[in-house]
Amino acid sequence: MKIDLNADLGEGFGPWTMADDLAMFDIVSSANIACGGHAGDFDTMTDVTAEAARRGVVIGAHPGYEDRAGFGRRVIPMRPEQITRMVASQIGALIGSACLSGATVAYVKPHGALANFAAADEVTASAILKAVRAFDPALPLLAISGTVLDRTARAAGHPTWAEIYADRAYLATGQLAPRAMDGAVLHDPDLIVTRLLTMLETGAMPTMDGAPIPLVAHSVCIHGDTPGAIAVARALRSALERNGVDIEPFVSP
Amino acid sequence: MKIDLNADLGEGFGPWTMADDLAMFDIVSSANIACGGHAGDFDTMTDVTAEAARRGVVIGAHPGYEDRAGFGRRVIPMRPEQITRMVASQIGALIGSACLSGATVAYVKPHGALANFAAADEVTASAILKAVRAFDPALPLLAISGTVLDRTARAAGHPTWAEIYADRAYLATGQLAPRAMDGAVLHDPDLIVTRLLTMLETGAMPTMDGAPIPLVAHSVCIHGDTPGAIAVARALRSALERNGVDIEPFVSP
Amino acid sequence: MKIDLNADLGEGFGPWTMADDLAMFDIVSSANIACGGHAGDFDTMTDVTAEAARRGVVIGAHPGYEDRAGFGRRVIPMRPEQITRMVASQIGALIGSACLSGATVAYVKPHGALANFAAADEVTASAILKAVRAFDPALPLLAISGTVLDRTARAAGHPTWAEIYADRAYLATGQLAPRAMDGAVLHDPDLIVTRLLTMLETGAMPTMDGAPIPLVAHSVCIHGDTPGAIAVARALRSALERNGVDIEPFVSP
Amino acid sequence: MKIDLNADLGEGFGPWTMADDLAMFDIVSSANIACGGHAGDFDTMTDVTAEAARRGVVIGAHPGYEDRAGFGRRVIPMRPEQITRMVASQIGALIGSACLSGATVAYVKPHGALANFAAADEVTASAILKAVRAFDPALPLLAISGTVLDRTARAAGHPTWAEIYADRAYLATGQLAPRAMDGAVLHDPDLIVTRLLTMLETGAMPTMDGAPIPLVAHSVCIHGDTPGAIAVARALRSALERNGVDIEPFVSP
Repeated sequence: MKIDLNADLGEGFGPWTMADDLAMFDIVSSANIACGGHAGDFDTMTDVTAEAARRGVVIGAHPGYEDRAGFGRRVIPMRPEQITRMVASQIGALIGSACLSGATVAYVKPHGALANFAAADEVTASAILKAVRAFDPALPLLAISGTVLDRTARAAGHPTWAEIYADRAYLATGQLAPRAMDGAVLHDPDLIVTRLLTMLETGAMPTMDGAPIPLVAHSVCIHGDTPGAIAVARALRSALERNGVDIEPFVSP
Repeated sequence: MKIDLNADLGEGFGPWTMADDLAMFDIVSSANIACGGHAGDFDTMTDVTAEAARRGVVIGAHPGYEDRAGFGRRVIPMRPEQITRMVASQIGALIGSACLSGATVAYVKPHGALANFAAADEVTASAILKAVRAFDPALPLLAISGTVLDRTARAAGHPTWAEIYADRAYLATGQLAPRAMDGAVLHDPDLIVTRLLTMLETGAMPTMDGAPIPLVAHSVCIHGDTPGAIAVARALRSALERNGVDIEPFVSP
Repeated sequence: MKIDLNADLGEGFGPWTMADDLAMFDIVSSANIACGGHAGDFDTMTDVTAEAARRGVVIGAHPGYEDRAGFGRRVIPMRPEQITRMVASQIGALIGSACLSGATVAYVKPHGALANFAAADEVTASAILKAVRAFDPALPLLAISGTVLDRTARAAGHPTWAEIYADRAYLATGQLAPRAMDGAVLHDPDLIVTRLLTMLETGAMPTMDGAPIPLVAHSVCIHGDTPGAIAVARALRSALERNGVDIEPFVSP
Repeated sequence: MKIDLNADLGEGFGPWTMADDLAMFDIVSSANIACGGHAGDFDTMTDVTAEAARRGVVIGAHPGYEDRAGFGRRVIPMRPEQITRMVASQIGALIGSACLSGATVAYVKPHGALANFAAADEVTASAILKAVRAFDPALPLLAISGTVLDRTARAAGHPTWAEIYADRAYLATGQLAPRAMDGAVLHDPDLIVTRLLTMLETGAMPTMDGAPIPLVAHSVCIHGDTPGAIAVARALRSALERNGVDIEPFVSP
């Protein structure tokens, strides 16, 4: 058994930092790097892509709404073609930064409200896909497993990989339980590990309100931006390795 | 005889516009397109690169200080490696936008205070050059003729083209007369045309304070962002053509 | 008969301008001045408040979503208390700028998507009102006539004045016809003048889809930010004066 | 003996935080609160002014260059009147936020590069002073002791208070040793306390390169934005209290 671990990195801005990027680099196999939209700037983009390349961590572009004040977690009303344009310019900015260290942007994963919107809305999903394919029809997309974005990209024949969330509860519909719902966010490391191992062994994820649902999982998204998150992430990686799961990127660097 | 005409385009932001880009597209052979730093956003970058491609106008990346309030005309204190990073991410953003219409970014020309700083400072010139070369050692640079940037890039063996300013007076040192100096900015279309034709025929530019100085000129920078500027630009192009000068880009699209 | 004419001014940013503010100052009796949120900066806020004071034009704060790229025309998802905070800080910024010339901010009128949202949503209306009243329970509010904001503010005993739109068609419900609807925006100066005079004489506004509806009107909002808008505005003022309508601010400067 | 302790607070932005503001509120008697220029937004301005008011900590406006990416630590080229305008609009924004909780802005202290520039340049000092006095000629200014700003404000008859830096070495000229100089920043809590007590008892500050220099000190600036800074600040306050120094604001709340 093998799985990729991905996390959002490079989400500082100017004098401000978000998570402990260096600690997370020891844990993940793929890094979703902010592109200057919801977070990130030319310094973080260059530093984080260079560090990822040094460590053999695979680099993904992590475009989001250009809304630093809201950290890309608010839906900003935009026409679909504007979403395509926004995503294209952000991927380009990260590629520009990465090429300073000879690093390669190997996949794209949308951030926050943009990802959530594309998870349920076909027009938004297509708008994102259009930007990715304008760069390279072979540039992989990392999508939340089973979402509209996931299905839309596969239907277009685009190379698409699926991620699940280790610390989020699922509904019987296959969707993530909304954060506002009681029990939607998991904090107990043991529970997080147990659920994930069950999922990897059985191919089905436990749900809050019904039977486990089958989910494809090439990658597991973990978080480093809350207190204690890094300890949980580290525990998760150790538990996976102890249980014979190899941590490997879903695409080669 | 032939010469390129270049101008800054795509310098709006959100609801605001700067010059009449569509009118300028009829006049120039090369367009320096703002990259979201001093001006421009994903909409302008996409629209203007697409329109340039449709019309066969060559596209240049026009990176500047990330200072919209100051329009890139103020020197923002930065370490040299930050300049490299800023320029790289901006070129990348424009390439990302251009690829939505299959357009190609064919050269780089720094904007405003960044260009002026690099015209006199070798460290800044090298920092810019480093960013350009990280993309592609064959990606041409357009520099103000005879400046430190021009010389630094040539000395590094980088493909470098030289521009002169049609509507700016020169000093006997070969430098542009500072804007604050009386007579530094020319407004009379006839004078502008006559000076330029003399320069193209003799290879030497008249100066305010001495003998004409020899200048290499592959391109002439014209402006569209002041009242009457477009009429002057149009008159300039017509006069050049009437005098048998072909308007041709310095690099192919 | 008398009426106030108001328009949005000071909506530039950095190097960019929006309307011809100086021309509009000859036409309006009240100026809604952008506060650095959707538009405006410390230069425009200072210049435009000073110019208004010199000319005896009454100054209103014109707060909007902090979304320059969208010019405050997009609803940015915010909690109600954030709307209160945003509006309070923007009014404060304009007051700070105005005090440099001894000018006074005499009323508040929300901008764009914030105004439209508050026109229909009581929570948003109350959030705005809360910010205004924190400054001064006697600081007047200018609201679109008949809207939720208008009614909410009156119900709270707040000094509230009502505006109508000269160049927008109304529905029989009393609401503005949505811009997307055919005929929603009027361009014919004669028609605009005729409708307005009818409204002022009868107290009822013609509608697109039914009988005229009674509307309270202390002020008429006019626009200066589209081609030809200033000519229309000037024609409107002249026609009003010719028909014996005095142009007077709804509050004293 | 008594002294004020002041620190910079409310220097987050959107999702990002800077120091542990709540911990600092237990230590300081005066809080310099960012006004949305170099840091801060409507949420931080409202929250931090309200918390200060609840705790009886005196509120100061802390205006800085509008340069979040540089955290107000870079000199942004501006004309003097622009500095006046920038400072005025920022003070206004903070007053607007403070009035939501009925809190009062009781003094002004410039931030970072703006403060350093005004410490040595009379034109900049006067530009800041002009903004403060436009609000209220009685609104106190907190200036670095012995600087041009300190002297300029006093010479104008403006109520001015002087601060010293606990963790920075001084030169025999009375200026702070530049950060780049070896030993310019002190990290040893015991040394910091000892120096400060000596200064308070003798009225003269030890210097790096000569005899102690006499300095007026109504307040001591402490920092909370570096690792370990809060522990140092807490130790400093305790040591002062143990040595019979009362911690009291220099102006009443």
